[in-house]
Amino acid sequence: MKSAIEIANSAELLPITEVAAAAGILPEELVPYGRDRGKVKLSILDRLASRPDGKLVIVTAITPTRAGEGKTTTSIALTQGIGRLGGKVMLCLREPSMGPVFGVKGGGTGGGYSQVMPMEDINLHFNGDSHAVTSAHSLLAAALDASIYNGNPLRIDPVSITWPRTVDMNDRELRYAVVGLGGKAHGIPRQSEFVITAASEVMAIFALASDLKDLRRRLGRIVVASTHDGLPVTAEQLRVAGAMAVIMKEAIRPNLVQTLEGQPVLIHAGPFGNIAHANNSILADRIALKLADYVVTEAGFASDLGFQKFCDIVCRTGGFGPSAAVLVTTVRATKSHGGKAFNVLGNEDLEAVRGGIDNLAAHIQIVRRYGLPCVVAVNSFPTDTERELALLKELALKAGAETVVVHEGFARGGAGGVDLAGAVMAACKKPNSFTF
Amino acid sequence: MKSAIEIANSAELLPITEVAAAAGILPEELVPYGRDRGKVKLSILDRLASRPDGKLVIVTAITPTRAGEGKTTTSIALTQGIGRLGGKVMLCLREPSMGPVFGVKGGGTGGGYSQVMPMEDINLHFNGDSHAVTSAHSLLAAALDASIYNGNPLRIDPVSITWPRTVDMNDRELRYAVVGLGGKAHGIPRQSEFVITAASEVMAIFALASDLKDLRRRLGRIVVASTHDGLPVTAEQLRVAGAMAVIMKEAIRPNLVQTLEGQPVLIHAGPFGNIAHANNSILADRIALKLADYVVTEAGFASDLGFQKFCDIVCRTGGFGPSAAVLVTTVRATKSHGGKAFNVLGNEDLEAVRGGIDNLAAHIQIVRRYGLPCVVAVNSFPTDTERELALLKELALKAGAETVVVHEGFARGGAGGVDLAGAVMAACKKPNSFTF
Amino acid sequence: MKSAIEIANSAELLPITEVAAAAGILPEELVPYGRDRGKVKLSILDRLASRPDGKLVIVTAITPTRAGEGKTTTSIALTQGIGRLGGKVMLCLREPSMGPVFGVKGGGTGGGYSQVMPMEDINLHFNGDSHAVTSAHSLLAAALDASIYNGNPLRIDPVSITWPRTVDMNDRELRYAVVGLGGKAHGIPRQSEFVITAASEVMAIFALASDLKDLRRRLGRIVVASTHDGLPVTAEQLRVAGAMAVIMKEAIRPNLVQTLEGQPVLIHAGPFGNIAHANNSILADRIALKLADYVVTEAGFASDLGFQKFCDIVCRTGGFGPSAAVLVTTVRATKSHGGKAFNVLGNEDLEAVRGGIDNLAAHIQIVRRYGLPCVVAVNSFPTDTERELALLKELALKAGAETVVVHEGFARGGAGGVDLAGAVMAACKKPNSFTF
Amino acid sequence: MKSAIEIANSAELLPITEVAAAAGILPEELVPYGRDRGKVKLSILDRLASRPDGKLVIVTAITPTRAGEGKTTTSIALTQGIGRLGGKVMLCLREPSMGPVFGVKGGGTGGGYSQVMPMEDINLHFNGDSHAVTSAHSLLAAALDASIYNGNPLRIDPVSITWPRTVDMNDRELRYAVVGLGGKAHGIPRQSEFVITAASEVMAIFALASDLKDLRRRLGRIVVASTHDGLPVTAEQLRVAGAMAVIMKEAIRPNLVQTLEGQPVLIHAGPFGNIAHANNSILADRIALKLADYVVTEAGFASDLGFQKFCDIVCRTGGFGPSAAVLVTTVRATKSHGGKAFNVLGNEDLEAVRGGIDNLAAHIQIVRRYGLPCVVAVNSFPTDTERELALLKELALKAGAETVVVHEGFARGGAGGVDLAGAVMAACKKPNSFTF
Repeated sequence: MKSAIEIANSAELLPITEVAAAAGILPEELVPYGRDRGKVKLSILDRLASRPDGKLVIVTAITPTRAGEGKTTTSIALTQGIGRLGGKVMLCLREPSMGPVFGVKGGGTGGGYSQVMPMEDINLHFNGDSHAVTSAHSLLAAALDASIYNGNPLRIDPVSITWPRTVDMNDRELRYAVVGLGGKAHGIPRQSEFVITAASEVMAIFALASDLKDLRRRLGRIVVASTHDGLPVTAEQLRVAGAMAVIMKEAIRPNLVQTLEGQPVLIHAGPFGNIAHANNSILADRIALKLADYVVTEAGFASDLGFQKFCDIVCRTGGFGPSAAVLVTTVRATKSHGGKAFNVLGNEDLEAVRGGIDNLAAHIQIVRRYGLPCVVAVNSFPTDTERELALLKELALKAGAETVVVHEGFARGGAGGVDLAGAVMAACKKPNSFTF
Repeated sequence: MKSAIEIANSAELLPITEVAAAAGILPEELVPYGRDRGKVKLSILDRLASRPDGKLVIVTAITPTRAGEGKTTTSIALTQGIGRLGGKVMLCLREPSMGPVFGVKGGGTGGGYSQVMPMEDINLHFNGDSHAVTSAHSLLAAALDASIYNGNPLRIDPVSITWPRTVDMNDRELRYAVVGLGGKAHGIPRQSEFVITAASEVMAIFALASDLKDLRRRLGRIVVASTHDGLPVTAEQLRVAGAMAVIMKEAIRPNLVQTLEGQPVLIHAGPFGNIAHANNSILADRIALKLADYVVTEAGFASDLGFQKFCDIVCRTGGFGPSAAVLVTTVRATKSHGGKAFNVLGNEDLEAVRGGIDNLAAHIQIVRRYGLPCVVAVNSFPTDTERELALLKELALKAGAETVVVHEGFARGGAGGVDLAGAVMAACKKPNSFTF
Repeated sequence: MKSAIEIANSAELLPITEVAAAAGILPEELVPYGRDRGKVKLSILDRLASRPDGKLVIVTAITPTRAGEGKTTTSIALTQGIGRLGGKVMLCLREPSMGPVFGVKGGGTGGGYSQVMPMEDINLHFNGDSHAVTSAHSLLAAALDASIYNGNPLRIDPVSITWPRTVDMNDRELRYAVVGLGGKAHGIPRQSEFVITAASEVMAIFALASDLKDLRRRLGRIVVASTHDGLPVTAEQLRVAGAMAVIMKEAIRPNLVQTLEGQPVLIHAGPFGNIAHANNSILADRIALKLADYVVTEAGFASDLGFQKFCDIVCRTGGFGPSAAVLVTTVRATKSHGGKAFNVLGNEDLEAVRGGIDNLAAHIQIVRRYGLPCVVAVNSFPTDTERELALLKELALKAGAETVVVHEGFARGGAGGVDLAGAVMAACKKPNSFTF
Repeated sequence: MKSAIEIANSAELLPITEVAAAAGILPEELVPYGRDRGKVKLSILDRLASRPDGKLVIVTAITPTRAGEGKTTTSIALTQGIGRLGGKVMLCLREPSMGPVFGVKGGGTGGGYSQVMPMEDINLHFNGDSHAVTSAHSLLAAALDASIYNGNPLRIDPVSITWPRTVDMNDRELRYAVVGLGGKAHGIPRQSEFVITAASEVMAIFALASDLKDLRRRLGRIVVASTHDGLPVTAEQLRVAGAMAVIMKEAIRPNLVQTLEGQPVLIHAGPFGNIAHANNSILADRIALKLADYVVTEAGFASDLGFQKFCDIVCRTGGFGPSAAVLVTTVRATKSHGGKAFNVLGNEDLEAVRGGIDNLAAHIQIVRRYGLPCVVAVNSFPTDTERELALLKELALKAGAETVVVHEGFARGGAGGVDLAGAVMAACKKPNSFTF
């Protein structure tokens, strides 16, 4: 089999204008960035306001292990599978940030024959959203220190500052710093920190905004410090919320790309799960729900983090809800949870499968507690044995799974995801009692 | 008369695809960024390699005063004027960086009826070039500290580091910092500095590169520190030059926009004059010279800085030379050099004109020393009197100007620049003895 | 009654030579520092080696409250009381450090008619011991950084440094610092801390040393950092232990002063209780035990800190043990522990006495657990009522006190301490089962 | 010949009480610090107020070379020589500070048979003066930052602070620091510097004070920063000048020691020449002038620094003047100024002597410009040849020296200084026209 990069490099992409047209986006609603990428204008939401929403499928996973579970690959395989079955489908994903890309290697564009394209562009600057977040964040930081420097009219207590600086790079050396050195002309000394752009509060805020005006308001409410009297100081008071919103005016438009099999994909916003909600933007979800019958969206980390935040924060704020959840696991990861060492995960071990099932069961319960049918998707590996797969299915069903489907999206693309697609589409048709 | 922003907002722009086509750029050579902006692929240079170069006109100015002289406005008026006269013309400009835009106000897109469009986009992220420079610069900084942190195999002396960090923002507080604090897990303490992106060495290098391979080589040669034995340490040794070049792969393509009257404009690279060569990229110049009969390009600061660096560095590296120089001045700026106070510059004062002529004369001499005809362009203001203009012309001619032309580009656009255009086109036809 | 300072200023001190002679110190064993202070040479221990030790009485207290309990005043009253009863007595105390003196006010020289003299000298530089500790500490700090700066032959990992700098001043601003800034000529940047001299490890070490040679060895074993391989780095390896000991050669001699009633007092070393053993030097105790029949010594903080450290660390290292313990309390402090508010502590309140007795009882138990008779000394206040005193006595005896004695040392000096002295001398005659 | 340390160790010192008595100091005016050192109370000045001053001899030198010139050794030899001739003499010297002692090696107590005793004590803590200066300096620094921290009632601009911290140690790492880190509880971040105690302004001030009250006033006038309005902030305003003076109350008393031959020596204050006046205290000079017929005092560095500051600052402030100056040189140092390499300075070279005479001549002129006879003292070395000495004498006389005398103080003590003593005593008898 060809490597992920070979597959990506030999892929023939549709012009983004064709992808958009097939998805129902009008030419004047698409802002092309070269041949393969584009942004979708928010005016599309006005045009389609009266159209009913499609079905929303949220993809989550068991607790991550070193073995990997393939959540993004499964999301793409599912999307391609629905496409093969003739469903009108759209996928929503988070944006990878440059920092981790250079720091840790490997982006967030899937693998094998289940990828989104153009891979390298998406993993680098993409359409500049991270840069816009960095710039808006930096403007607020600079304005805050400038206000203190220029007579401090807001009576900000420098020691109370909680607004860090940000950089879109894994740069250990910047984490803790003393800034404002060099004497009177160069600021006021204080301790400061840098966070990666994905951990910027601006990233989290922009993923929740409903339009530019709403973003403007949300930015204005950011608290960055307190006064000597203990009162909060906001971006609004520093008079930069407007400029921050202007900086974000292109970033707020969801980015349109495609799967290897031509299904439309919106990739938009990438807030970290440790400090934010770990899901793509609400705007991407909303547009997709108006355009497609099935919208697949992926939550960060495991169900106890990204999935819960999706239900509690994203759905609550966005005013929508999922029809089904897909919980991704693998035989290998299950065995890893069962205590098997990484270098022998390829050997058949039914006891390890049994031992690792508790983790899967806990995540199934989390999904069910939100009133959703839980389709367990087993991302297959060449080393999986029939007996392991059978045992995993049996145990997952016992633990409360709606269905358990093995997929071969990595090796076979959409063809390998058809069974999963069928199961998910069926689950969506059932009534559910989603609640947050 | 309408304000610059009103004019900009009411302008009807041609689709960038039409601007490109009219300029001779093939559809497959254009990478659109929305409707109004695009990037030009470097493959165009191969296609047009055998075509003879057009005439190159370099626009410079007298020593800047608070009164302003309008060098960019004049460059655009000249371009629009040549267009009105039927000349096939192209304009090359530097990219404004976000830092000064927010710090000082006012971008670099001309004024009145002589502007390049779309103004706001150009002054904000444009097509991401500054962000790419920031990212490439930051990657090198992070790699340098990471190498020291991880056992320091290159034996780098931390105190010898000359590579700063960069941020695309006027952020006084970051100029001098101590980084690497927070204990063993967070780097090694050292003093560091932040420079604005326009002052990054990566910005200077990329403006001089002839293609991506050349950029890769130049980035690899950046010296960032020395070893404990006093030997230089390069980006190549830190193994990040390749990744830096990948980050720059879109940025290296010149950005295509248009004047208010539809002439094609390449805006590309914005290195600061204080530490670099203060001119747009060589690639922009080269592409324009293949596409147009007249290429207007603007050098930063006055003739003793940007113009000389253009001749000595840009032309030497790029392998081309100008046919004429335009030296921009105003009656007001001349009177300012003559000692007249700012708030009364609007009053007629022939003595002040006479007193300020030495500055103009010195710049004319600088231009002539390079063997070029020097067309003095007087950017007219409503307060200029006939007697002042006549005196200025007389004195400029005495000082060695080829011709002296008053233009009204601000108030009348290309129509106001036709005389200047004619004079410049005439000067280009004359033989010259350009040498650096 | 006169204030403490008025009493101190009107006191007529014996020449220190007379105090020394009366205590049995030979003229050649005394190093005078002016008329009123002196140091005792360690050679005295050789001369008196064969003489049996006197009885050692350790003074401790209940948990401190804002009301104060008067431990030092009680120690001095007891010493003066034993003197009045004709006992050959000597008092050992810790040295106050300048830092807290200027930071918090109030030294450590007792109060009322139970004081040690000359008060101001003792609270300021005294005989320079704190300065010597500061200098020795600073020399080690400087040598450590100099070794790293000069090629780092010991391969010290700068981030591993645990040796702070020290200053004999409450200087908040110095607690956390970044040092070594200013470029190559001025050291290597790193985070550092300053501790107050009383918290210096040198202070703790010198209080435990048995002579200059032993001090030299102990200083050499100080661990200040670790190598890049994780091995400890010592002062010995930095080759400054010898110089540090030379700096300490006068400081190691105990300082001789007197009570208001002329009894000899050795004040020597002042390690903080939070990081060290909170007791005066072993050398002072040893010399006093050879010279006097009764040696009163005071442990820092309450019995659960200074007293336990005295038993477990000082006695173990010094090779001696106490014959009795005095536990200081007051009616006011007991009522404070019983929950009574500070501003009404002067009102009779038997319930509060009852409520606060648990604290006293716990400390009595700590003392008894070490096999010592516990004489409870009630430091009387004018507001104490007969009923409160009677109740306190009753409850203390029930809780296991050997005896309970009210003293009036503050108001009446030695005359007010005679009863306490009698009870302590009686307790000393009983057999005890001291063990650590 | 024995080494300097061997000579020092085998010296038999007079009890300091005897030295004091012989010098005319009453027992109650002496504060002994052990057997060999003491301090002189300032009350002696009241008792002797009406006694006429003795003759003051100021010792200076040529520009220092690596060869050394032996100014202190010559001062002591001269003192011992005057003693041998029956003159009632006293020597005044600066205090060495611990910092340079440990940093550079070698103290300031002379050499060979011309030394002051007890050497090691003088080079270590001596009687605590440097420590007192350090403490007073530190108290002001702490008070300054505490005032800013506690609401900043004086409106001090932290960036304007010019008061450094001080440490009596050569500690490169502390020169430039950022202090006040660690968050709100630990001060306010700012850049700070540490200077060595000898460079503290408190050291300079205390050397100029006439009594404790005057010192109190001078300390109060120290400017440490400015307000946000640009007004100076003083120690007085910070309310610590009184406490600083109390800390200095013992330090202000001159320290009494002796030469190897028993002459009394006052060693007091040690301000650095680079930032202060480089001479011992005015109080030491004044007391010596009341007690002795001849007072030898030594100025720091060469005549163009310490000598001029002595005349212009010390004499002006102290209200006294010298009767003669001694200018110290050596054959070796003269040859070094003549360009001869250090390692061959021992070889006879008349040309080098001739070449180096310009430096000597310039210093002779400086001395004469102040109206003083200039006795050139040639500190002899074993390698000096008769011809070199003769030439040096001849040239020095030509350059304006009063007399030129070779002395052998190093090798023979006072016996080797008798000729110099005779010449100086003779010069003192002549009328002079001293003026500043």
